[in-house]
Amino acid sequence: MRVALIGLGAVGRGVAEMIAKKDLGLTITGIADSKSGCMDCNGIDPQRVLAQKKQTGACGDRSITAEDIIRDAEYDALIEVTPTNALSGEPATGYIRAALSRQKHVVTSNKGPIALAYKELRTLAQENGVTLRYEATVAGAIPVMHTLEHGLCGNEILGIHGVLNGTCNYILTRMAAEGLTYEQALMEAREMGYAEADPTYDVKGIDAAIKLVILTNTIWGNSVKLSDVDLTGIDLLTPDALRLAEDEDCTIRLIAEAIPEKHLLRVSPRIIEKNHPLVVEGTLNALTLETDMAKEITLIGKGAGSIETASAIIGDLLYIRDRYGKCT
Amino acid sequence: MRVALIGLGAVGRGVAEMIAKKDLGLTITGIADSKSGCMDCNGIDPQRVLAQKKQTGACGDRSITAEDIIRDAEYDALIEVTPTNALSGEPATGYIRAALSRQKHVVTSNKGPIALAYKELRTLAQENGVTLRYEATVAGAIPVMHTLEHGLCGNEILGIHGVLNGTCNYILTRMAAEGLTYEQALMEAREMGYAEADPTYDVKGIDAAIKLVILTNTIWGNSVKLSDVDLTGIDLLTPDALRLAEDEDCTIRLIAEAIPEKHLLRVSPRIIEKNHPLVVEGTLNALTLETDMAKEITLIGKGAGSIETASAIIGDLLYIRDRYGKCT
Repeated sequence: MRVALIGLGAVGRGVAEMIAKKDLGLTITGIADSKSGCMDCNGIDPQRVLAQKKQTGACGDRSITAEDIIRDAEYDALIEVTPTNALSGEPATGYIRAALSRQKHVVTSNKGPIALAYKELRTLAQENGVTLRYEATVAGAIPVMHTLEHGLCGNEILGIHGVLNGTCNYILTRMAAEGLTYEQALMEAREMGYAEADPTYDVKGIDAAIKLVILTNTIWGNSVKLSDVDLTGIDLLTPDALRLAEDEDCTIRLIAEAIPEKHLLRVSPRIIEKNHPLVVEGTLNALTLETDMAKEITLIGKGAGSIETASAIIGDLLYIRDRYGKCT
Repeated sequence: MRVALIGLGAVGRGVAEMIAKKDLGLTITGIADSKSGCMDCNGIDPQRVLAQKKQTGACGDRSITAEDIIRDAEYDALIEVTPTNALSGEPATGYIRAALSRQKHVVTSNKGPIALAYKELRTLAQENGVTLRYEATVAGAIPVMHTLEHGLCGNEILGIHGVLNGTCNYILTRMAAEGLTYEQALMEAREMGYAEADPTYDVKGIDAAIKLVILTNTIWGNSVKLSDVDLTGIDLLTPDALRLAEDEDCTIRLIAEAIPEKHLLRVSPRIIEKNHPLVVEGTLNALTLETDMAKEITLIGKGAGSIETASAIIGDLLYIRDRYGKCT
């Protein structure tokens, strides 16, 4: 299967490395970063491009854009891994729209388009007889979407409860373990590279809420938006609150939850028993799916990381390759 | 899709109930328990049969056997959910062999045939162009096999570590929480219906080892046997050992693990940090998959129960239905 790769940040580099390293039956015919691109219908050596990018800062010809590749390259699936813009969803939404319209499958790690334009893009994919997959948008390496689609197929999903932001989970873990203040733990998270200079997006719960929106729309076919989420961040939590929880053998985690029957769509710090499967440490992510037959199934794993996220992207690509090879 | 159901214990009843309750596109054309059976190519009402079984102790005509149904009924997939015989694998292995030879798909919850005759049965399925699926044999409702097949597709599995026996986990949980002796906790487990009159199979680690054999042969295509597993049960554990672990913020769990690189295939009580994702409470099961890209992914859920196990069976049936419907 031929793939075009748009985006060469941490995730894009991870995908390129894994395609180079593993015998996955995937050939890259186009690569673009934000300022250059290259195309070759006979296949591009990802390692050569990664080396070139490292040396020169560009992955190819500065006159070739992502749009050129999406429009002109010969590929079966587009890998869209540009940075998330949670407000506009662009330029990713435009990229995805263009590829789907060309009857190309799309795999993305980009939360913007899926949170903002899921229905439109899904319809466009269906009309063009192709697939839009986005396992990597929620909980990194954890195969949430595959579990919903296959593993728990036949089950009705009654509710979801998740730890979907590793930065917040790290801060809360450190506050509980060492009695740090929020500010101290945030500083530590910054030093470890887990928090950005402006941590608003993470600590206010916005990132977790966007993932909750994606999950909710996927599972229940809704059209909820970020503004529908009842949102409280962790930035006002005190060490006292954690100490009180600790006294009851509990702790505090930022939990994203959706229970349609209770009209609940919320991201907020919750007191939770320490031995509950959702209480994971550090930057881990966790998601509990409440179902009618299987009851509660919890998935735990790394919510971020270059190769970890590449795992989700590659799972989606191989799913398309296997379906594409067999059924069409 | 037409299915024949062999076995009407807790799992078989759960499957029949769910097929009756949910609109899954599945029609039952044959049902057998250990002493009777019924066949109808136009479909059997599962609720009528369950009511009849409750009233009369038989699900149909005492002159119709499971063999008759497997040989003569019109069905696309056999659901084999008779009790596990871990030594001989029979009569289940014979049932599965007969159905595969008739080019019928098979879904089973029976550990005997998969632990003892997996290679033979898989080859027979391939030769006949059908599928043998057994999600329900390991960790009940947790979709382990689907996660290996789809969710983590593309990953190399480097090792597995699991809590695969709910009875042992309940006993260890209670010993740690209340300082009970092994004998006291076992008695409590019996009262709760979690342990059998003869608990050997569970507490000696045999059940967990059989599941480890199934996982190992599935993941790495090996042909390991129960006798290859380095086996230690929980029956000699003292409250002292648990107390010592507790002092280090650890606890003890019966862990089944396979790491091919280290030639490790072992079921034994292990000291494990309390906040490790594998430390689950009560009768829960948990499995950590160590992979090259996704790193560690842990799945937690109910390892037993009528409807919980039916969830795994139905997941397998729908997988076959979707493939069968689309690709053949």
